[in-house]
Amino acid sequence: MNYYIMTLFPEMVMNGLNESIIGRAVNNGLISINPVNIRDYSNDKHGHVDDYPYGGGAGMVIKAAPVYDCFQDIRQKMTGKPPKVLFMSPKGKVFNQKMATELAKEENIVFLCGHYEGIDQRALDLIVTDEVSLGDFVLTGGELPAMVMIDAISRHIKGVLNNEDSAVTESFTDDLLEHPQYTRPETFMDMKVPEVLLSGNHKKIEEWRMAESIRETKEKRPDLYEKFIHRSVE
Amino acid sequence: MNYYIMTLFPEMVMNGLNESIIGRAVNNGLISINPVNIRDYSNDKHGHVDDYPYGGGAGMVIKAAPVYDCFQDIRQKMTGKPPKVLFMSPKGKVFNQKMATELAKEENIVFLCGHYEGIDQRALDLIVTDEVSLGDFVLTGGELPAMVMIDAISRHIKGVLNNEDSAVTESFTDDLLEHPQYTRPETFMDMKVPEVLLSGNHKKIEEWRMAESIRETKEKRPDLYEKFIHRSVE
Repeated sequence: MNYYIMTLFPEMVMNGLNESIIGRAVNNGLISINPVNIRDYSNDKHGHVDDYPYGGGAGMVIKAAPVYDCFQDIRQKMTGKPPKVLFMSPKGKVFNQKMATELAKEENIVFLCGHYEGIDQRALDLIVTDEVSLGDFVLTGGELPAMVMIDAISRHIKGVLNNEDSAVTESFTDDLLEHPQYTRPETFMDMKVPEVLLSGNHKKIEEWRMAESIRETKEKRPDLYEKFIHRSVE
Repeated sequence: MNYYIMTLFPEMVMNGLNESIIGRAVNNGLISINPVNIRDYSNDKHGHVDDYPYGGGAGMVIKAAPVYDCFQDIRQKMTGKPPKVLFMSPKGKVFNQKMATELAKEENIVFLCGHYEGIDQRALDLIVTDEVSLGDFVLTGGELPAMVMIDAISRHIKGVLNNEDSAVTESFTDDLLEHPQYTRPETFMDMKVPEVLLSGNHKKIEEWRMAESIRETKEKRPDLYEKFIHRSVE
């Protein structure tokens, strides 16, 4: 998977992603993360890429040409079908696990990160395939959402998670929240590990964990609990 | 506002946030971002902070003591009331704009970033005030969600946005999506700027923009459109 991130802040993207599992996936050649600076496609000797909005109003608008030219340059590096171009926008569909698994099947994904100032609508009309939102909150720019999505998508690419990671992750996919976890010591600040976990009785341990998962889900995420009940009945 | 981020990957947090508006707010002393490495509170000569889960299973669990000791050390740096301690977790309440504005009133916020391996429940029971989720997707760790929340919260702290930023942001708060924006040139790739925006007639421009906002909202976010209609009727 090759990710291309069209942004005015390329350093931010790289620096926030080079740790842990995602860093390992980059080093193993399973994914590549390529920030591309929209400013490099300025047609102005001062490197400006924005201008005042037609019709007046506060803020500046990023011009169509540098965004379009930047995309064409990225497009030339790819073979095969046109890439998904995701515009990070509060207007978009809210990102979720299903989108993450679907997007993981792509060969190339382009993220277009706007800033609070907005992008000329014509560039969006020409290149964007999907508008995607991280949730109902306002952010300074699209870089952090793009980084979050890269993390969530990459986990579904073969080889990115090792067996141990995968086993832990699976528990999220059956609509139930994780049961509580405990490790040594047995007593911490007068708080004891639940007796059953020390029993060595694997059947009892599994029963306890399932009951705790159901309790946590019912209490904290009634929406997921409903889904779980519905699926169990089917 | 002082943010403290309890994490195993402190570099990731700083590097992903030092650009743009958030970087300026740090430089102006309006906010401070303080990553604290949980590993520094290991009581083991190899610097390990995790151990096998009681009851068996894949993955490792971060021990209660380093998390608790790390928090106590952060707590000592503060005066006044106990801080909010947000645990980044798929079990949590889904983060939204209302939470961002509420949290912006705090003096100190502590983020606890788990990893896929989990944290000993006793540490969570002792220190966490709120479990918060970014949405229904699985991530490698809590660092990216903490960065997203720091960005969203900081925008509501007085002085962080300058007047121009603020004016642009306001348009998000009335439950309508932004109207399309255009800047020079008038024609790009045979696509023309809508005539009305060049008319100089401010009343007409405002009407067009409002109609476009309503159209975009109805089409892309029917849930927000319903809220808007409901509020308009009241």
